[in-house]
Amino acid sequence: MKTCIIGASGYSGRELVCLLLDHPYATLERVTSRSLEGKKVEDCIPKLRGKDCALCFTNPRIEELCKDENVELFFLALPHGTAAEFAIPLLEAGKKVIDLSADFRLNSPERYEEFYGQTHPAPEWLEKASYGLPELHELSWEISPLIASPGCYPTSILVPLAILLQEKIVKKEGIVANSMSGISGAGRNATEKLLYCERNESAGPYGLPKHRHLSEIEEQLSLLQDGSSEDVVISFHPHLAPMSRGICTTISVPAQGDLDRTKVIDCWGKTFGKRPFVNLLPEGEFPDVAHVVGTNRIDLSVQADQRTGRYVLCSAEDNLIKGAGGQAIQSMNVCQGYEESAGLL
Amino acid sequence: MKTCIIGASGYSGRELVCLLLDHPYATLERVTSRSLEGKKVEDCIPKLRGKDCALCFTNPRIEELCKDENVELFFLALPHGTAAEFAIPLLEAGKKVIDLSADFRLNSPERYEEFYGQTHPAPEWLEKASYGLPELHELSWEISPLIASPGCYPTSILVPLAILLQEKIVKKEGIVANSMSGISGAGRNATEKLLYCERNESAGPYGLPKHRHLSEIEEQLSLLQDGSSEDVVISFHPHLAPMSRGICTTISVPAQGDLDRTKVIDCWGKTFGKRPFVNLLPEGEFPDVAHVVGTNRIDLSVQADQRTGRYVLCSAEDNLIKGAGGQAIQSMNVCQGYEESAGLL
Amino acid sequence: MKTCIIGASGYSGRELVCLLLDHPYATLERVTSRSLEGKKVEDCIPKLRGKDCALCFTNPRIEELCKDENVELFFLALPHGTAAEFAIPLLEAGKKVIDLSADFRLNSPERYEEFYGQTHPAPEWLEKASYGLPELHELSWEISPLIASPGCYPTSILVPLAILLQEKIVKKEGIVANSMSGISGAGRNATEKLLYCERNESAGPYGLPKHRHLSEIEEQLSLLQDGSSEDVVISFHPHLAPMSRGICTTISVPAQGDLDRTKVIDCWGKTFGKRPFVNLLPEGEFPDVAHVVGTNRIDLSVQADQRTGRYVLCSAEDNLIKGAGGQAIQSMNVCQGYEESAGLL
Amino acid sequence: MKTCIIGASGYSGRELVCLLLDHPYATLERVTSRSLEGKKVEDCIPKLRGKDCALCFTNPRIEELCKDENVELFFLALPHGTAAEFAIPLLEAGKKVIDLSADFRLNSPERYEEFYGQTHPAPEWLEKASYGLPELHELSWEISPLIASPGCYPTSILVPLAILLQEKIVKKEGIVANSMSGISGAGRNATEKLLYCERNESAGPYGLPKHRHLSEIEEQLSLLQDGSSEDVVISFHPHLAPMSRGICTTISVPAQGDLDRTKVIDCWGKTFGKRPFVNLLPEGEFPDVAHVVGTNRIDLSVQADQRTGRYVLCSAEDNLIKGAGGQAIQSMNVCQGYEESAGLL
Repeated sequence: MKTCIIGASGYSGRELVCLLLDHPYATLERVTSRSLEGKKVEDCIPKLRGKDCALCFTNPRIEELCKDENVELFFLALPHGTAAEFAIPLLEAGKKVIDLSADFRLNSPERYEEFYGQTHPAPEWLEKASYGLPELHELSWEISPLIASPGCYPTSILVPLAILLQEKIVKKEGIVANSMSGISGAGRNATEKLLYCERNESAGPYGLPKHRHLSEIEEQLSLLQDGSSEDVVISFHPHLAPMSRGICTTISVPAQGDLDRTKVIDCWGKTFGKRPFVNLLPEGEFPDVAHVVGTNRIDLSVQADQRTGRYVLCSAEDNLIKGAGGQAIQSMNVCQGYEESAGLL
Repeated sequence: MKTCIIGASGYSGRELVCLLLDHPYATLERVTSRSLEGKKVEDCIPKLRGKDCALCFTNPRIEELCKDENVELFFLALPHGTAAEFAIPLLEAGKKVIDLSADFRLNSPERYEEFYGQTHPAPEWLEKASYGLPELHELSWEISPLIASPGCYPTSILVPLAILLQEKIVKKEGIVANSMSGISGAGRNATEKLLYCERNESAGPYGLPKHRHLSEIEEQLSLLQDGSSEDVVISFHPHLAPMSRGICTTISVPAQGDLDRTKVIDCWGKTFGKRPFVNLLPEGEFPDVAHVVGTNRIDLSVQADQRTGRYVLCSAEDNLIKGAGGQAIQSMNVCQGYEESAGLL
Repeated sequence: MKTCIIGASGYSGRELVCLLLDHPYATLERVTSRSLEGKKVEDCIPKLRGKDCALCFTNPRIEELCKDENVELFFLALPHGTAAEFAIPLLEAGKKVIDLSADFRLNSPERYEEFYGQTHPAPEWLEKASYGLPELHELSWEISPLIASPGCYPTSILVPLAILLQEKIVKKEGIVANSMSGISGAGRNATEKLLYCERNESAGPYGLPKHRHLSEIEEQLSLLQDGSSEDVVISFHPHLAPMSRGICTTISVPAQGDLDRTKVIDCWGKTFGKRPFVNLLPEGEFPDVAHVVGTNRIDLSVQADQRTGRYVLCSAEDNLIKGAGGQAIQSMNVCQGYEESAGLL
Repeated sequence: MKTCIIGASGYSGRELVCLLLDHPYATLERVTSRSLEGKKVEDCIPKLRGKDCALCFTNPRIEELCKDENVELFFLALPHGTAAEFAIPLLEAGKKVIDLSADFRLNSPERYEEFYGQTHPAPEWLEKASYGLPELHELSWEISPLIASPGCYPTSILVPLAILLQEKIVKKEGIVANSMSGISGAGRNATEKLLYCERNESAGPYGLPKHRHLSEIEEQLSLLQDGSSEDVVISFHPHLAPMSRGICTTISVPAQGDLDRTKVIDCWGKTFGKRPFVNLLPEGEFPDVAHVVGTNRIDLSVQADQRTGRYVLCSAEDNLIKGAGGQAIQSMNVCQGYEESAGLL
């Protein structure tokens, strides 16, 4: 599989470059970045120094990319809005696209406009795109040549929660999800609030009460529950914690029927038992981002709280791998028929 | 006011030493620590080096302390269980006691036994002790010579939440509180899980679903609501984040009646408007532990989430000051009739 | 003493605001910042929230400042180059100035041009200014109304080293000084290299081999040694370490005559014994920035290395206090005849 | 190659487990740890969770290990002193040994006794062992079946410095090396000084002036210079910095003959040009531990300081990989005739 990454200067893009360069079946033919044009990849991504990687960043000219015979699959690691500008012509030119932005994650153009403040440029593609969470959705190039790779927060919430809603093990009312994210989740932007001295020894919420990722979380929960796309509404509270990478999420959700930890364990076991990247922790252990950083794994735990009649679901993942570049590669692996974990830890 | 700190080798005890040495009206006459006996205080607390503080740690012999004419008020910075062993004879000897442990925070001996796994050694003092949260309770030496200083998590939850329950602005069902604590909250214990390399770049929940602090949180919420001590039950999810100090808490709570941010603001304004250490943030700003570390302040914010019918209450405090030593001094200030903020930032 | 801070938006400026607001004898009458004009000080410096500080940032108009009858002393917390533009008219208007920039730290205009790449705008003031290291230089408003407050690295090197050179206890050849600085030393600039994710878990040298601070380090060492300003040349290696504040410095210097630790201890004791902010550590202990952060103290240690015939001098300080704002206040205290430690920890 | 790791509970041991499990040509047949006996490897090393690794820790019984037909090569990740107790019988039983401790790094039993405070248990093996720095020494099982893998600090100093001494490009007098190490360098010991809250926001020197690693640094420099083992004496100043992993070292060394940066560059190029793990940085860039963490690479830079007549050599490495487990595997690769970088990033 010959691939290209468009927009590889941010944290997700860089991670994707490293992962693709080590992939056993895919090759990275081209890497673009406006700001790094002309520079050698190994000079800009220090982890790669001395690897004798001949690649240089090129300027992403859409027409040229569309005609590039040498690339079959494009990964878009671009800001929201910009991604669609590339995705649409590439798809029209017959290319495959895995988009790491939010541009094609939603089904509903109205919801897109509500959360992103602009009309969607290609609403017909919203429905056609696959939501690239391989543990929850069947993926193949036949189903769609456009895969919208999920956000980091949505992954940490949907993996533990969606199947429990679908199986009516939990109620859809009164769900409260809290997440702590490492600072790389905010991107590689030179702004004051992301300076070391501002974020070190700092912790707190942001973007309350309506973070953009709520749109895809709720749409996915609704769709998976009963095919509607409108009716699950949850509370979601993102926080920044002083660490580079990782997300941990704790979800409080009322039980439907009996409150019984084994119901959750069984349901997760049935759904994820053969998946390489979902790991159920033994009772009494809790997810910790330190345990998953550098891997494509998501660790899960569940407690039944008899006092409140609620389950406490916890998850941890690396926001730049399972929450971004690693998951995109996992989707590629599935669509290509490679083993799901090829090139991933 | 002549004071003594018993058990000053931990993080809270050390903070208390520094605060009392700089207090304008209180003097620190004596400091005890079994492990540091005989050492100069300024050699053990590096912040104090070069201050020419003549104090040395002594071994805490209870009989001797009870007879010490030179001390009127004892601060206990001891582990749970040990604190009661000191408090009871000191009180019987006519001394005043501010206890930073959990030994006298609850009213109900049954609840104590449920959460702490042992019979309470002096149940008669459980009812007599004042719960030392000056923003919520009237405190005076006449009311009680024993003040149980609240835990760090309970402070961060009770300050924003209790008054709203009392005023029926929020419902008591379905409350979910999530907290992130700095590592000093786990104490100064040489255990593997508290090593730098274990906690750095690490974040996750612990102690789910029934952390010990739940006992005092729920008892206080119940008592403040209607005088009963049994009926408010909440979900509480503590997490560790990789920072030395601070707690931030985010509480999701259903509105009672109209969901209206100004109702909360007004209620908080009326209750805390004249209190020096509760700070309401302007709309659109959120608490951050970096902003309160080193102070006795608790910062609060509130959002009304129309989508869920819930309020999102957020708070941040320094766990070792407002969540421990600072609050103990604040209680002393109030009982002594000093200005509430004497010796505190 | 009525004071004003010009340029209070950076890390040093903010620290200075907090220190002056708590000073027992000085008042802060005015605070300027172009970027924060019109904003309340307590809204911009979160540590001050809720303090009811009425001050707002104003735009620094030089003419207006020169005529301000209400201010006697101006602290300049401005970038190099800009500081001189303010200092000169203020001095001409009869004001006192303590400048935290590098603009008046050197005697020699040639050296200024060599290290700062521009002609000095007021060379006549270079000689007139006092170098504001109170442990090494006599300071008074009569000697000079302009005090150039030293850099953070120079303070950490000059305090331990200068007197040993002057007393011929060490040789001037072959001196190697290595420093590790917290990130705040690089200022509050929104650049990529200062982002949390770039500096976290990162450590390394920068600015080798000729950091700008070498100019004042070598000039001071030369002047203190024998009154010349040219002849001591040292190796200086600054590094960034992943922490917010603090500098620790380790200096390797060949002994002159016998290598004998007590010679150093005695010399330091004689020089610094009565100074409140220089603290000699007991044998076997080493300076640590964690022990001095938040104070105006500098901790020192010395080892005699018989194998190499060299002394190893170590120091630690808070770069924003003893290395910046705290030292500026210490100089003010000395010039005003206040106790040297007034308003400082 | 069938391997076993003895003592795999520490940070280096765990790293080695992960590296060997992914090695293309070696298999990990056995892992021992007294403290973790009976536990599954993937339950104790969270990075491995979900990998379906069947290995369990066993108790290291020397006799049993010596007879284990299934293992050809033993890696010892044991404390100094204990390693020799295992190495000697294993070697006598015909096994190959790569020892990560200091037990066989020196040639001279006197020097061992001077620095480690005890008589060496097998001085005949001191001379027979190879010092496992593949960039400086030829390694093969024929030369020795016992490889003493170098310490983390020595690696960071010897790689840049030794060849320059050997080629007479630098003088052997007046060398000063300063290092900053991440906290994992101090091991996984539950002691107070390694707690998160003690090391976070902390930086300073330790172990001055005669750290144990000086013994092997100086012996290697001497041997490589002229075959003697006694005459190079340097100043070495180790520091701890608040990060989990990594070492950066800055060495000041007087030039022999002309001071000329290209002489160093050429010498390094000739020596390391074909080695996969030594990377010379372009002029103006400096090593940073963040750039090498997770790899087996060491990054180098050099500056010529005309003012002092000295070179400034800088290096950065991952202390647990190039400074420990990775280097041990690199040595195995070389001895086995695998490509040098097999199984290493």
